[in-house]
Order: sequence, then C-alpha cells, then structure tokens
Amino acid sequence: MTEKADMRGIKMVVEYDGTNYAGFQRQPNQPTIQGELEKALSIILREEIKVVGAGRTDAGVHALHQVVSFKTYALFEADRLQWSLNCLLPKDIAVKSIEIVDSSFCARRSATSREYEYFILNQSHPSPFLDRYSHFVARRLNLKAMREAAQFLVGTHDFSAFCVQSTVGGLGRPIRTVFELACRRTDKPVKGLLIIRVRANAFLHNMVRTMVGTLLEVGLGNLTPGAVKEILEGKERTKAGPTAPAKALFLTNISY
Amino acid sequence: MTEKADMRGIKMVVEYDGTNYAGFQRQPNQPTIQGELEKALSIILREEIKVVGAGRTDAGVHALHQVVSFKTYALFEADRLQWSLNCLLPKDIAVKSIEIVDSSFCARRSATSREYEYFILNQSHPSPFLDRYSHFVARRLNLKAMREAAQFLVGTHDFSAFCVQSTVGGLGRPIRTVFELACRRTDKPVKGLLIIRVRANAFLHNMVRTMVGTLLEVGLGNLTPGAVKEILEGKERTKAGPTAPAKALFLTNISY
Repeated sequence: MTEKADMRGIKMVVEYDGTNYAGFQRQPNQPTIQGELEKALSIILREEIKVVGAGRTDAGVHALHQVVSFKTYALFEADRLQWSLNCLLPKDIAVKSIEIVDSSFCARRSATSREYEYFILNQSHPSPFLDRYSHFVARRLNLKAMREAAQFLVGTHDFSAFCVQSTVGGLGRPIRTVFELACRRTDKPVKGLLIIRVRANAFLHNMVRTMVGTLLEVGLGNLTPGAVKEILEGKERTKAGPTAPAKALFLTNISY
Repeated sequence: MTEKADMRGIKMVVEYDGTNYAGFQRQPNQPTIQGELEKALSIILREEIKVVGAGRTDAGVHALHQVVSFKTYALFEADRLQWSLNCLLPKDIAVKSIEIVDSSFCARRSATSREYEYFILNQSHPSPFLDRYSHFVARRLNLKAMREAAQFLVGTHDFSAFCVQSTVGGLGRPIRTVFELACRRTDKPVKGLLIIRVRANAFLHNMVRTMVGTLLEVGLGNLTPGAVKEILEGKERTKAGPTAPAKALFLTNISY
C-alpha cells in the first residue's frame, strides 16, 4: 500500500512551563500539554493528530526537553511547521526542534532513559524569579548526607516505597533502574540553588518527587542516610518522605 | 541631641520582578516597589519609613540588585528584619541583604554608577521560561555591527537623542557618562541569549531602552553602526530606534 509507505514519523523536542496545566497527558475539560499540541498540529496539518510523549509529567511539572512523536501523511518542511506551531501554541509551550524520523519511532517506547532535575533554592532569602520554578528551603541542607543517602537509590530496585501506592498494582512490577542520582550546589548563574538530578530507565508515579522529599528529610537531619536504605527495602510508601512540590521539577532529557 | 546621634542608616539590596508594578517610585493608587517596601518596613519597625532607591526603574522593569536606603531610630537585628520583610513582602519582591551603614549614606546620591542588562532571546523559537524576562527576536542579529555601534555611545555625551524628549528640560542637562556598553551572546546556561550590558554614572528617562532599541536596528541591518554616531550628534529622539520593551530590562548593579 503506497499510503503506508508514505507515512512519516515525526520527532519533536518540546519545552513547557507546566504551571497552568493538568500535566502532559490529555484529559477531558482540562488544559494539558498533549491537548494543546494535538489541537495546534491538527489545525496546521489538517488531519487529526495524536501524539505520544516520552514522559508523562504531572500537573505543574515543567519540561526543558520533552520528546513527542506522531505519524502523519501530511507533507511539510520541518522549519515551517515549527514556526507555525510556535505562533499557534500558548506562550508557555514551545517547540524547540522537529525532525522527520523512521515511522517506527515512538517517543515513549523507543526511549531508553529519562532525566529529571529538581531545583531547591537553599539560601536565607526567597527569589522573585525562581519562586515559580524552585522549592525554597531556608535552612542549610546537608549536601554530604543527601549524597550518601542518594547512593542507596541507585541501581535496580523495587521502588514501592517511592511511588503512589495505589498505582503499584496497576502498572505491573514496581521495579526500575536508577542510573544516576546526583546532588549538587550551583554557583553560577544562580548562587544558592541545590539541584538533584535523577536518570532512570523509567519512573513510577510520583517517584522523583518522593525520592526528593526523602532526600530533603536527610538534608534537614530528620532522617539518616542509612534510613533511606531501610525505607527502600521496607517497600512502604508511608515510611518515605513527603512528595516534594511539583513546581520545582523539570524533565530535562530523554535518551534513545 | 542624643536622638540624632542614635539615628542609623540602613542599606538594603533588593531583587524584584517588576511585571506587576508601575515602577520603583511611589505613586498614588498604583502598586510600586517603593510603596511595598515602605508599607512592610513601617509595619515591622512601627514608625513611618521613607526609602530612597538607587535607580528609579520604570513600569515592568526588573531588578536583580537594587540598592535602597532609609534612616530609622528603631533598633533591630539585620537578619531578623530581613526575614520578617521577606515574610511580609509580596513574592515578587525580596530583600537579599541588610546592613547598618553611616547615616549619611543615600542609595541614590552616594551611587557612582548604575548597571543594567537587557536580555534578547535571539534564536528561531520562543522560550516559555524566558518570555516574561526577555525580548524575542527570531532573525539572527549581527553582533559585530552592534558592538561597533555601541562604541560610539561610550563616553561623556549629550544623550538627548536617547531619552524621553519632554524630560530633557526638566531634569537639567542631558549629559551622562557611559562607562561600558557591551554586547555578548551566552552559551550557558541558556543558549541563544544576547545580553547588552550598560554601565553609566546615571541614565536619562528611557535611555537604556532607547539605546537597546537603536542597537537592535543595527543588529537587524536597518541602521549602519555609523548612523548611531550621527543620531547621537543630531540630538533628536525621533532619529533613534524604538524604545525596547521593559520586560527584558534588569537593574543589575549599583557602585558606591
């Protein structure tokens, strides 16, 4: 069938401020990133477009590098489509690049790892510019203890203690592989930021924010690094720290 | 008089997102930075406080480093006052530091130079995160030509062509000394930013934004670098470029 032979796969890199959205995934009567992208693409390409995102970011979570794919019969120049989309999309969503790829490419299934960064403003005073995008903690965090605790979470584990418990059953085995979990203080361009970067093959629901909330308890001295190992092994969500606020979480990279 | 001997000078460094304010300077029935600071200080110190700012930023202009001074008889610990102020102030204004200084110190009169930076997002696509704080120009700007033009504006000149004309008479001689006017592209942390930094002993009303608007015309190829020299010498505002948008301008430093 010639039609199938002509179908093209499209890969887009998308950036968004998630403040005003109910998350990436399309939902009835709620503003979502997927919904906005599909609406704009369908208008421009004059066919109904359904997109797939590499990471299903929650309500209020941002993305500096989300990968989105879709298939289409429409013919277009990638640069022009990017320009038209950026004109049509709300100002808090932008398409950073578009490329034509093999039609077998799927942003979610083809992905081998996802990377998130969590921004903690750890200084004596708040920041007007970072308020929307960081979690303010005035008390000095113990970075060394946080790093020690983080090492227990690296590797292939059952992360039942670090996800929304009700979803464990539904999503299959709660086993994921964390490749990297690094904590660093930045000096430039902003002094006082403490950034937690985590990269894994995939994440359970709320897994990043629960890991961050638990590391924060360690940084504040409310938990010892060793307690994190016990929480992981105990597999009980109630033992881990609180879920850290969504506004400070950014999806920063997807690997293929 | 013992009372006078006890009066203390206070120097505060303040950061603010100017988006929702009618500028720094107090105005009746309008939200201003000065108004918010005086209201919060007067509540905490239980006396009427009047502050002086080093730079009178316009409506919509931001500050990463504004210096504010006032005098008071009240006794307090600087750290505690800072904490209380940051609790009481709106989230888009923050006090970065407070120190007790000689009571002769005046944020405005004691200042020897002011520095501003203007953020231009010069790439093919807009940015959800920088939209509030930068001026988006999709066409590639000619940095070399902008730098060449900028050099004509450095030094002591009559800047009548680069300010709100009606204010020239009222404010005395329109002569200012520009110490530095530098254009650079950034690679980190954000690729695609072009930043114009300008430092002068003082600025006329709208002077920075008119200089930026004129340099943008040069960068776009609408004006030659040499034309900027003629505009400066011609002293006519109508010959210079448009006033660049306020949202991309930041007060970044004050020297004493």
